[in-house]
Amino acid sequence: MAFSAKIAALRTLLGEWSLDGVIVPRADEHLGEYVPPSAERLSWLTGFTGSAGLAAVTSRKAAVFSDGRYTLQLQTETDGSLWERRHLTEEPAARWLVEAGAKRIGYDPWLISEEALRPYAQAGLEMVALEANPVDAIWSDRPAPPAGVAVLHPLEFAGKPSVEKRQELAATLRAAGLKAAVISDPASVAWLFNIRGQDVGFTPFLLGFALLYDDASATLFTTPAKIPAAIHDWLGAEVTVADRPALAPALAALAGQKVRVDTQGSPAWFAQTLTAAGAQVESGLDPCLLPKACKNPTEQQGSRDAHLRDAIAMTRFLYWLDTSLASGAALTELSVAAKLLALRHEMAGFQGESFPAITAAGEHGAIVHYRASAESDRALQRNEVYLIDSGGQYLCGTTDITRTIWTGPDVAPAALRARYTRVLRGHSAIARLIFPPGVTGAHIDGFARAALWQMGLDYDHGTGHGVGSYLSVHEGPVSISRAARPIALQPGMILSNEPGYYEPDAYGIRLENLVLVQKANLAGATRSFLSFETLSLAPFDPRLIDWDGLNAEERDWLNAYHLRVIDTLAPYLDAPCREWLQKAGPR
Amino acid sequence: MAFSAKIAALRTLLGEWSLDGVIVPRADEHLGEYVPPSAERLSWLTGFTGSAGLAAVTSRKAAVFSDGRYTLQLQTETDGSLWERRHLTEEPAARWLVEAGAKRIGYDPWLISEEALRPYAQAGLEMVALEANPVDAIWSDRPAPPAGVAVLHPLEFAGKPSVEKRQELAATLRAAGLKAAVISDPASVAWLFNIRGQDVGFTPFLLGFALLYDDASATLFTTPAKIPAAIHDWLGAEVTVADRPALAPALAALAGQKVRVDTQGSPAWFAQTLTAAGAQVESGLDPCLLPKACKNPTEQQGSRDAHLRDAIAMTRFLYWLDTSLASGAALTELSVAAKLLALRHEMAGFQGESFPAITAAGEHGAIVHYRASAESDRALQRNEVYLIDSGGQYLCGTTDITRTIWTGPDVAPAALRARYTRVLRGHSAIARLIFPPGVTGAHIDGFARAALWQMGLDYDHGTGHGVGSYLSVHEGPVSISRAARPIALQPGMILSNEPGYYEPDAYGIRLENLVLVQKANLAGATRSFLSFETLSLAPFDPRLIDWDGLNAEERDWLNAYHLRVIDTLAPYLDAPCREWLQKAGPR
Repeated sequence: MAFSAKIAALRTLLGEWSLDGVIVPRADEHLGEYVPPSAERLSWLTGFTGSAGLAAVTSRKAAVFSDGRYTLQLQTETDGSLWERRHLTEEPAARWLVEAGAKRIGYDPWLISEEALRPYAQAGLEMVALEANPVDAIWSDRPAPPAGVAVLHPLEFAGKPSVEKRQELAATLRAAGLKAAVISDPASVAWLFNIRGQDVGFTPFLLGFALLYDDASATLFTTPAKIPAAIHDWLGAEVTVADRPALAPALAALAGQKVRVDTQGSPAWFAQTLTAAGAQVESGLDPCLLPKACKNPTEQQGSRDAHLRDAIAMTRFLYWLDTSLASGAALTELSVAAKLLALRHEMAGFQGESFPAITAAGEHGAIVHYRASAESDRALQRNEVYLIDSGGQYLCGTTDITRTIWTGPDVAPAALRARYTRVLRGHSAIARLIFPPGVTGAHIDGFARAALWQMGLDYDHGTGHGVGSYLSVHEGPVSISRAARPIALQPGMILSNEPGYYEPDAYGIRLENLVLVQKANLAGATRSFLSFETLSLAPFDPRLIDWDGLNAEERDWLNAYHLRVIDTLAPYLDAPCREWLQKAGPR
Repeated sequence: MAFSAKIAALRTLLGEWSLDGVIVPRADEHLGEYVPPSAERLSWLTGFTGSAGLAAVTSRKAAVFSDGRYTLQLQTETDGSLWERRHLTEEPAARWLVEAGAKRIGYDPWLISEEALRPYAQAGLEMVALEANPVDAIWSDRPAPPAGVAVLHPLEFAGKPSVEKRQELAATLRAAGLKAAVISDPASVAWLFNIRGQDVGFTPFLLGFALLYDDASATLFTTPAKIPAAIHDWLGAEVTVADRPALAPALAALAGQKVRVDTQGSPAWFAQTLTAAGAQVESGLDPCLLPKACKNPTEQQGSRDAHLRDAIAMTRFLYWLDTSLASGAALTELSVAAKLLALRHEMAGFQGESFPAITAAGEHGAIVHYRASAESDRALQRNEVYLIDSGGQYLCGTTDITRTIWTGPDVAPAALRARYTRVLRGHSAIARLIFPPGVTGAHIDGFARAALWQMGLDYDHGTGHGVGSYLSVHEGPVSISRAARPIALQPGMILSNEPGYYEPDAYGIRLENLVLVQKANLAGATRSFLSFETLSLAPFDPRLIDWDGLNAEERDWLNAYHLRVIDTLAPYLDAPCREWLQKAGPR
């Protein structure tokens, strides 16, 4: 079906449904980052495959919106004679629709949150929640939704039985006078019931919804075939499994009760259905988000175990890369990433990558969200910068690490080493930071940047994101960013520490370790403080470090880190790799 | 009149006015920090003289509320048999009133903002705006309101004619579809019309209100006797002066129009009167706040001039203090502060202190808001810490500086020097910071604390406040604090940089200079960055600095600062003082 025919079919629907326009966001019913093929409606309709976007179609006009990361890709993938191409925040769809003269706009209430709907209403548009998705109505060869089967996440990794988690949350619901909470985030579903799934790539999600009640009972709404008998036993008697059609009646049964809905993270359908049924919607954070973010001792130890395995694979990889480059072997972005993946596969419990690796040579590194493809794949050349950002899913934890390498054989240019060293100083400032309770990611983001700022440089992304425990590699609610939510950093939270610097059309530098928030061990302190335990272990490329550009505290930190890397990994490495690693060691 | 009689009289009024209770905040009609004696109702009613507080009286109970700064003072100044003493935020008055069984609560809509009223309504109380202030009804010997006469603030200090300010603001009003804006902050009134007054201590305010219209005309509401003919000429034909009774009709004339009101900073009376008159209230920042905070080049130069004079006085003072201590002269907190004031009076354009100096010896320094009085005044002793936080009002600018001194003659203890040096490192981190546009005070507050945090120490106040131009020493809307408003730091803003450390019952350390936000001068930077120009010039006590505790960047900064102090001030100092200053110099 040609893209023009798809637009035409959608316009026929507009007429039948008495609408002036319709919006098609890139989203599934869980509003998350990874979307199964059956929910790739934006891509099917427009050709645009980026991870953030939206199409708006009226009877006469059509536009597709995305953000700065995808400006070029939007141009390449969509037909400019069919689609206007717009910036999602600078030229918002609400304004575009108003300017296009549209008034009544249809939307699928399963694919957008109440918060995200607000700008449309504020622009004066009449937003009409549709009973059926308009794209699905014309998408005849739509893939089947994923049918991955649930697996149990055993206590040796989860650390706390589901019943305890539910009892604790139920107590907070009761304290707030809430009868129930809507859980629409599959990461929350997985954490709450100690289950995992196989419905989307890179993250072991089971796609489903849950209602948690104030008596610690719960209903899991998902296709029953996805829940084998063993999982029923694992879930226990207090957890009912129900098919999706049972969801609306279950919400209707909450009439007259107060129900927590995360109106920022959940589809608008939930609040709308509850309100229509006569329930009182209390807008607030998904109650699983904070306890899930604060890893329990078992999860913390699991993450350390995962990071040890990942560090072995990563260090073997860096050694292999260095020797391969020195021997003049032909390497490309994809072949190098494949080698790292193979080395990870040798590690116990490795389940797959936690996201598609960013493997970027030379100027590709300057594209922050670069994805190497068969077409873009490029050889690693002599005397350039190579950046690899990758991670693994292990049953005991999730990893994410970035290293930036000088391919040699010549000495790296001084300007490059100066910039790399500034990024390393920022990374070290976060790693060394001690801070009191109450501090948020917005309060500390600048520490990762100050050394770059001092040179008039910066990077256009956050410094860190939360990371799950054998779950999403991007996990809320906290981050290290100027725009971080006002939620304090707390013991057990795992975040990335990944400052960078990007020289347009030349190279990218990013240095990423994961860190775990811990109570700081301070002799004689009269109040409690927090600090970061660095989890990731792999050397930083000594050829890119300008040692004179580090102050004493930074040098001490770097030496101690490298000593720890060597001491921890040496028993797992063969002699040549161990010798190579020693060279990165303290000086 | 005894306090018990005052409460009894208030309760009689409650009966007559059919109220269950009444609240009496410490505030005047401008909701600012400094309040004229005629508005010190809380002090008259309860005896409590702190700068933040509120009384609540019901037919059977009475309580007075303040914050942690005043816990002790509240106990001392009020009669426990008449008043329950409560914490303003931990045991809020709204909850206390509900628990006291009160329902209908009277308040003076001139003395509380819409925002501050919200918790009362949320607690389910029926808040009744009173036509007359209940305390005034029983306060027979209430002082007359201040009758200070307006003076003009000439262009050589103001830098921009009022008409230009009004035209620029009028354009923003028109762009937002606003007919007018309410100006209730006397600092905004002073800035907008380039006038100053003499109505309250320490800040050259003329107490009055203004309405600014979208055609750049304005009305100044104040007692006409306060505006001499010369000021009428200065204000020009577009500015009408009207007496206070004309205010309500002027608001009523805005029926059907959209009017900006700062519902956080203005008395609730404005929004209530406008709404009742059929005007549409748009809640938003007082439009003068941001342009007033961003000093124009004339004001910036004026501030440098004021700081030069203040630095001469301050350095002469520090020399005098050092030699007096060495000679064993008898000094007390009040006598030392008097000497500094006398030295400031020798400076051209000095108008008086910008706030009551905090002069605190030994353990008094640990009380952040300590005010020396005839009763508390204490001798400066040998081998202790002395802290003085003071500032001046000059026609060209406002200053605020804090230095912490070791009285000698012995070497200061290592633990003290270590802490002083940590505070100095934090001060230096702010002073040296370079940062991009968009950064707020919340994003950089941690830089002032990180060196203390590293030792498990912190301080319980913000790092910096905005400072006016021959206006309030505490000026909004920006600050350097974890709780700073989300308003970016911008060129021309003047802020204090004042980290500290307080050892309970022992001493206080605070090191304060004012800094001016400037465009950073960075060779080769491709984007614009900002930095702080330090305005205050006075040496840091070398006897408290642990030079080995500074890293190279901090040592370089401190040496460069002391060189600048010496080079700038030497021409103004006599030979012995100059020699003394050299000793504080670079090492």
